[in-house]
Amino acid sequence: MNTNQITASVPTKCDLLVRADVVVTQDTDRRVITSAGVAITDGLIVEVAGYNELEAKFQPTQRLDMAGKMLLPGLVNGHTHLPMTLFRGYADDLPLMEWLEDHIWPVEFQLTDEILSIGADIGCCELIRTGCTAFLNGYFHEYITGDAANAAGLRAVLGEGFFHFPSPHFPTANDCWDTIRTLDARYDKNSRIRTAVTPHAAFTVNPDELQASFQLATDLDIPWQVHLAESPVETAVCLEKHGKRPVELLRSLNLLTPRTTLHHCVDVTDDEITALAENGVNVVHNPASNLKLCSGLSPVQKMVDAGVTVGLGTDGASSNNQLNMFRDMALAALIGKVRHEDASAVNAQTALDMATVNSARCLGWPELGRIEKGCPADMIALDLGSPNLMPMFSPVSHAVYAATGMEVCMTMVAGEILYLYGDFRTIDVQALRDNAFSAVEWVRTKAKK
Amino acid sequence: MNTNQITASVPTKCDLLVRADVVVTQDTDRRVITSAGVAITDGLIVEVAGYNELEAKFQPTQRLDMAGKMLLPGLVNGHTHLPMTLFRGYADDLPLMEWLEDHIWPVEFQLTDEILSIGADIGCCELIRTGCTAFLNGYFHEYITGDAANAAGLRAVLGEGFFHFPSPHFPTANDCWDTIRTLDARYDKNSRIRTAVTPHAAFTVNPDELQASFQLATDLDIPWQVHLAESPVETAVCLEKHGKRPVELLRSLNLLTPRTTLHHCVDVTDDEITALAENGVNVVHNPASNLKLCSGLSPVQKMVDAGVTVGLGTDGASSNNQLNMFRDMALAALIGKVRHEDASAVNAQTALDMATVNSARCLGWPELGRIEKGCPADMIALDLGSPNLMPMFSPVSHAVYAATGMEVCMTMVAGEILYLYGDFRTIDVQALRDNAFSAVEWVRTKAKK
Repeated sequence: MNTNQITASVPTKCDLLVRADVVVTQDTDRRVITSAGVAITDGLIVEVAGYNELEAKFQPTQRLDMAGKMLLPGLVNGHTHLPMTLFRGYADDLPLMEWLEDHIWPVEFQLTDEILSIGADIGCCELIRTGCTAFLNGYFHEYITGDAANAAGLRAVLGEGFFHFPSPHFPTANDCWDTIRTLDARYDKNSRIRTAVTPHAAFTVNPDELQASFQLATDLDIPWQVHLAESPVETAVCLEKHGKRPVELLRSLNLLTPRTTLHHCVDVTDDEITALAENGVNVVHNPASNLKLCSGLSPVQKMVDAGVTVGLGTDGASSNNQLNMFRDMALAALIGKVRHEDASAVNAQTALDMATVNSARCLGWPELGRIEKGCPADMIALDLGSPNLMPMFSPVSHAVYAATGMEVCMTMVAGEILYLYGDFRTIDVQALRDNAFSAVEWVRTKAKK
Repeated sequence: MNTNQITASVPTKCDLLVRADVVVTQDTDRRVITSAGVAITDGLIVEVAGYNELEAKFQPTQRLDMAGKMLLPGLVNGHTHLPMTLFRGYADDLPLMEWLEDHIWPVEFQLTDEILSIGADIGCCELIRTGCTAFLNGYFHEYITGDAANAAGLRAVLGEGFFHFPSPHFPTANDCWDTIRTLDARYDKNSRIRTAVTPHAAFTVNPDELQASFQLATDLDIPWQVHLAESPVETAVCLEKHGKRPVELLRSLNLLTPRTTLHHCVDVTDDEITALAENGVNVVHNPASNLKLCSGLSPVQKMVDAGVTVGLGTDGASSNNQLNMFRDMALAALIGKVRHEDASAVNAQTALDMATVNSARCLGWPELGRIEKGCPADMIALDLGSPNLMPMFSPVSHAVYAATGMEVCMTMVAGEILYLYGDFRTIDVQALRDNAFSAVEWVRTKAKK
């Protein structure tokens, strides 16, 4: 008689045991596990395996049975401007400068904290609804987005935007640096809210201020992020102003570093891509926005092949007009093929990597974007009963090409459920709708006559 | 005293009175009516106006209160292959010929009626869920799709596909013509199912057979539809085989007519676009498929400007991987801008026109795609409480850029509700899901080893 067989093993306690038909882990081996389970304790994943194995091993305080569902890591939005959700569909189909000068800026300069927070709240609601659990934000009055994300239960990296000084918000550079330090201190004890240093662009911030802002990021040990090479128009402006293309300019300023994330990179040459890879620079691709503003098609597959970490972002709802990472995953894969004249370019796995593990690295938060032991329990579930997910041969293909984002039926951050089967746990959607009506009236009143 | 004031006007009876926050009519004036109503009798729209006006005028048998919703015409899918929904995500990210020869064709040649009907049923379910009420189908054994659409309550135009003869399905041209005549007769008394003549392509059907098939379409007085100018590769094959580019070939055969609808038209010159316009030829644009198969970007705005009626289609789920007209509307608008290097190209109204009134004309069913007196009551409702539709400045912009298609909460054909708030009235979704599992097993068994 084997004594092992009669000594019952003592089950390990855990807070929550989740069961699902499929788990797309996005771990190092990109495992896809069927009839799977995830054990969670203190907001962290303690084990991912076949469900029966976990059921035998753990004694959970709570269970969540997601039969007929597929679990994915919470998606990570590498670039957005949440309060601009206010301007969703406010002015479409216009060239960039006409859009900004005649429509966005005249209203934007009059925005109040109250109105900004309506935009941020709607944005948080849409992110949760469409399975995004963390995002990089760039705007002004970033404590508004920080507080909105905190209340909603999301993770955020806050980037207080700035142009050259003096600007409407900052008379001097020191005023800006102080604001960023205050913002960083405000969320010092908050495990879900972080900060970054986010100068607007290489052609709107002076070179010495770009360098000073990078020094601030180094001092605070936080990411440094900038819009760069968004379009051939930007390149022309940069050449005229500095005699250098955008990537060349940053290189000459020693700003191509592993702390650096560049947003867009549509107009980059092969040599510039090599420089990005050699210096460990991260890039965030924003396909919907690049198309809508007619900026161009980014050479994503070339960057990936060169070894650049390419994340994915939605940009603001004013130039997308969604904050739906599923839509941008599909767009990245679809337009990547035409851009590279190759039907195998930006395949489904690459697009999913962009929206999860790569965006996480762009945020300076590399433990996000994966369902793996020791990582935060940020997960979403897709309802496989949705007709557009039938039949299913490949879970990864379905996540990228077939899902709309609205199949998300559960969104969880740090083990806390934010959304389950239509129920928002942290947001009052009816109040949000009433506020949205007020915001429309407000914007119309403030619009340029 | 005015006698008009004391003589109560007798209300008109109607079957159904629908109330909604907004109605996007797509009528000739493209009216968008707020606090609106639609009165319906015998499956036809009898009046569209402000709700209070209709409430005073009509005495409905039933009412449908869609408060907080926006009504749109049912979308019209100008090009799909419904049974191929079976192959959704089965083989992605592959060049066209490898995809067809190694993956699709080896399985397709073994398809049974039972398996085909599973694909068609899933397709119908997705169309209803995402607000499509009519579609043009091209495949083989078209009675399967016809019967599926009929049972689901949708409208369909059935195109029995054929290549040059002899083919696996048709030993001779006459066998094919007989099949099409039989198909047409099968649905002779069905107000929702029609037929078209649909040769596969100009490089896969001989010129004399193209002309004979057009004669058949003329005899039956039904549309004639063909895949054309899908990619530069097709143009090269056509030039080698016939010494003419695809549009030139059709012109030389006198096949550019108002009865003609061309599917794709990615690789067309300015002169060819002029020829299409001058001859009243219709075109269906399939943006997702063109991107995924790396066919290219169609010059949609150029065709629209020239006066060509350009409709919209999803193509099959095997090359999309959705059958979601909302996704293809957004794609048409987004990639149209980059294709034409103009942020105002393919604007929201143009994209919505493509998916409604223009696709309807491509189907030869011009009374579809509009909410207008005398037209069939084919309508859908979008839930404006979805966070991605807040705030709302422009209903048309939201339909094209902000909606995913999953905000559809009601789908109606000829006054009959097919879907309402999650409830499919004509489809057993659980049975469908079980069948989808069986289909996956079947396909894997039949796949090329």
